[in-house]
Amino acid sequence: MPNKFPAPPYYIVAFSSQRLDADHLAYDAMSDAMVELAQVQPGFIGFDSARDAAGFGITNSYWESEDAIRAWKRNVDHLAAQRLGRLNWYEAYDVRIGRIDRAYGFGRK
Amino acid sequence: MPNKFPAPPYYIVAFSSQRLDADHLAYDAMSDAMVELAQVQPGFIGFDSARDAAGFGITNSYWESEDAIRAWKRNVDHLAAQRLGRLNWYEAYDVRIGRIDRAYGFGRK
Repeated sequence: MPNKFPAPPYYIVAFSSQRLDADHLAYDAMSDAMVELAQVQPGFIGFDSARDAAGFGITNSYWESEDAIRAWKRNVDHLAAQRLGRLNWYEAYDVRIGRIDRAYGFGRK
Repeated sequence: MPNKFPAPPYYIVAFSSQRLDADHLAYDAMSDAMVELAQVQPGFIGFDSARDAAGFGITNSYWESEDAIRAWKRNVDHLAAQRLGRLNWYEAYDVRIGRIDRAYGFGRK
């Protein structure tokens, strides 16, 4: 930050989740793998992610098009991760998808 | 979660920030005050927020209209908080504003 993203418009997947307090090693490994995999998908721009000590987290990922988002959702390895997430890792999550129209930032010198 | 939000479309302010490791008490008090103030603004729908142990955080707030977002940005007390943020609290931040078009969620029984 300030981000090196292209100028808007681009697209966002806002993923909020409450982790179960279990299976941390497997989750962390899969989370790292999904970040690596997302970064090589067509149309991937970047992401921000934060999770607090209570296990609540937000990952915002940014994409060049809605088609890129749909392709990522259908990626075979990602589908397996989504299934494991519902089985083992998440108490609940919300996914919100839309278009970013304006962006600005601040950074210290 | 799953969210009680209205069906899309609605609007998002995605705020990513890196906190300076300083002035935590004042920051936390202002952060709480801004959450309370945002919740009584016209057009406010809800928010998610997470900050990790390294001070990186994301707050996604959701609004009924772009006008509601503009009015919140110009709120006098919020403007004071924004100024203090740049002076004392943030190493850097990014703000991205857009429209959410689709949303879905998952939750355990």
